[in-house]
Amino acid sequence: MIRAVFFDMDDTLYDTSGFAAIARRAAVKSMVHNGLKCSEDEGYGELMNIINEKGSNYDKHFNILVERINGKLDPLIIVNGIITYHNTKFAMLKLEPESFSILLYLKSQGYKVGLITNGKELKQWEKLVRLGMYPFFDDVVTSESVGVEKPDPEIFNIAMERLGVTAGSSLMIGNNFDVDILGACNAGMQSMLINSEITPKQKEILEEMECTDKVRELGSLIDLMKIL
Amino acid sequence: MIRAVFFDMDDTLYDTSGFAAIARRAAVKSMVHNGLKCSEDEGYGELMNIINEKGSNYDKHFNILVERINGKLDPLIIVNGIITYHNTKFAMLKLEPESFSILLYLKSQGYKVGLITNGKELKQWEKLVRLGMYPFFDDVVTSESVGVEKPDPEIFNIAMERLGVTAGSSLMIGNNFDVDILGACNAGMQSMLINSEITPKQKEILEEMECTDKVRELGSLIDLMKIL
Repeated sequence: MIRAVFFDMDDTLYDTSGFAAIARRAAVKSMVHNGLKCSEDEGYGELMNIINEKGSNYDKHFNILVERINGKLDPLIIVNGIITYHNTKFAMLKLEPESFSILLYLKSQGYKVGLITNGKELKQWEKLVRLGMYPFFDDVVTSESVGVEKPDPEIFNIAMERLGVTAGSSLMIGNNFDVDILGACNAGMQSMLINSEITPKQKEILEEMECTDKVRELGSLIDLMKIL
Repeated sequence: MIRAVFFDMDDTLYDTSGFAAIARRAAVKSMVHNGLKCSEDEGYGELMNIINEKGSNYDKHFNILVERINGKLDPLIIVNGIITYHNTKFAMLKLEPESFSILLYLKSQGYKVGLITNGKELKQWEKLVRLGMYPFFDDVVTSESVGVEKPDPEIFNIAMERLGVTAGSSLMIGNNFDVDILGACNAGMQSMLINSEITPKQKEILEEMECTDKVRELGSLIDLMKIL
């Protein structure tokens, strides 16, 4: 019997990638209006190249973009990108109704609710607070705070220990098969994949790991209510 | 005859210290509401100690505050401080009417207008853009971008050279005697001190430097209109 439900945050409870894409498009539009010498589509494409090269936690994407396109740094263009990116992102930071509903449902039914997220401690907590989501969680585990990240089973073990629950009574919900689902399987938990589909190749992997019975696909967060 | 007017930014054109104090008080209030174990006055006092110890460009003031008061880091309290500080600061970032008026007046009269500011390039530019002040300036010199800071006469020389003006036709306006006024004197410029008064001791220094005739006190930025 499930007593604790653990969630991934980004792209599971909050459409991080979708909203980041909108904020980046807004930022590039502002940069082009302020002198970035390319079209908005070209600028966005190059920005995505830079993010892929440097990772999303690097903090000088816009500097590199301006230097590559215009041949030199221009603070006016860079800060217009930064300001527009942050204004747009913060304007969109609202908890989605489905996430709100399912978290409230789980609490009302007496489940323990945890968050297990890869990322920087304060950056992830800032999202939790701005979204107004943190009061729903009995515990929050960020990879930076515990020094180990998903899919390492250790981060799942830490999260379960902190909530005082066993793997047999724990369910993990996430959008990333390799990170959330395989990690949870290795820690002995049941898990559900959301916003993604299990491929035939991934089904084979689950069979090899003898985890097939422990993993399901979830159409939407609300479906949890019917399943639990 | 004066052809170019150079301004300091912080506490000259914009009440940086006053607004930072309000944003910090708001941040501490939010942190106390979220579990910082002290009164708001105690928290603010300790925060100011930390800022004096670490400098205002250090980015972990709130982390240290929480660790000192509560004995351990608590991400919920820290991010509430950060979010409230930024929300409050950005909400107050508006160009003051006096600054707007005098900048518009100088441009309408054909003066060249420059900015000479100590600080980080993008941090200072972000203020210029958020305040909507940057279009008034023919040139902006930040200490980070040129590798030398006020009161070194070199930064004033760079600024004058970039605007194509001589020291004899240049006026510097700032709030800091040691940084803005002595620096400008050493570069051969006239200068005006605002939001501060010249002390007897400082008058002696000016006499020794033979700068007495080149320095005046300014009651308000608007008074520039009568003087020029």
